[in-house]
Amino acid sequence: MNPGSLDALIDALKCLPGVGPKSAQRMAYHLLQRDRKGAQKLGESLLNALTALRPCARCNTFTEAEVCERCLSPKRDATSLCVVETPVDMNMMEQTQAFNGLYYVLMGRISPLDGQGPTQLGLDKLLKRVDDGVVQEVILATNYTNEGEATAHYLSELLKARGIKVSRIARGIPVGGELEYVDAGTLAQALRERRGIEG
Amino acid sequence: MNPGSLDALIDALKCLPGVGPKSAQRMAYHLLQRDRKGAQKLGESLLNALTALRPCARCNTFTEAEVCERCLSPKRDATSLCVVETPVDMNMMEQTQAFNGLYYVLMGRISPLDGQGPTQLGLDKLLKRVDDGVVQEVILATNYTNEGEATAHYLSELLKARGIKVSRIARGIPVGGELEYVDAGTLAQALRERRGIEG
Repeated sequence: MNPGSLDALIDALKCLPGVGPKSAQRMAYHLLQRDRKGAQKLGESLLNALTALRPCARCNTFTEAEVCERCLSPKRDATSLCVVETPVDMNMMEQTQAFNGLYYVLMGRISPLDGQGPTQLGLDKLLKRVDDGVVQEVILATNYTNEGEATAHYLSELLKARGIKVSRIARGIPVGGELEYVDAGTLAQALRERRGIEG
Repeated sequence: MNPGSLDALIDALKCLPGVGPKSAQRMAYHLLQRDRKGAQKLGESLLNALTALRPCARCNTFTEAEVCERCLSPKRDATSLCVVETPVDMNMMEQTQAFNGLYYVLMGRISPLDGQGPTQLGLDKLLKRVDDGVVQEVILATNYTNEGEATAHYLSELLKARGIKVSRIARGIPVGGELEYVDAGTLAQALRERRGIEG
């Protein structure tokens, strides 16, 4: 019923996460009718990003060079390596300004239900990265979801077998959190992982 | 913090309706990491649609030719012209298989709050279309929202002044609707616009 190039556009928009047939149609008409400049920019930046970006040879995040700026920076502490699931998580860590080491981005997590096993995650690259003779501690900062936990567990076994010091970011009451509103599981963990107060 | 081409892509994705900074980021990473083929297709079909599609000279919907297939079809009744807000509405009308006339797509509605007055809607094109000497009745099928109603009202005044027969699609209880669950406004309208039963 629609012209071919319009149907092709609507169909292509469905590749975006969370976009079904109805939203795809709405997006296509919006772009064509109200924001042709934005559509042009989107089309060009998609094709440009696909050719320009590749995984950093060291930390696996997206970069335009062989190795990303952060990995090359002499100001970072190369003895400490933080493993995160996604580049977004890496950005969140950076925003804390509480970590000055380097990162490794898994670009996913172990999730057997989605067909993502250890092989699909490409963990060889992480193991090679860790074996550079400089890294002394690996901090596992995967999510505290079931998949993130499974990934952290798998990685810690793998890394400890190689004699590397492994740690996991702490679990507990969020800053500003009130016990009344924290779920029982979190509270139980906070109790189990309580710290001695010194001094 | 991100490479330039990645930031450009995230920024460009924000032009999609309903997509904010967080979704844009998620979409960019999804495309780059999990669906490069889809991203390639989306980029190409966007640029292709922008050059291939233009408004039909007669009905104003998107078409790849000067005049769209429907407007050229000899099987359609050219004396009846149905005015709708969007191509989606036109497709909905077609799905009813209850109308065999031609269409005019406003590509919007009168909405002063959004800066959409009669001038921005380009109603000259509709008036020129109606003056072809063949159209006998204009059916206003804009939405029954405030904006759609205002548009229908404005158009009916404009068209009636030119001696054209104007009608509006009926308002009332939906098919399968139960009085118990219909809002009072709809029920009041259905009462006011009741039809005599013949025979």
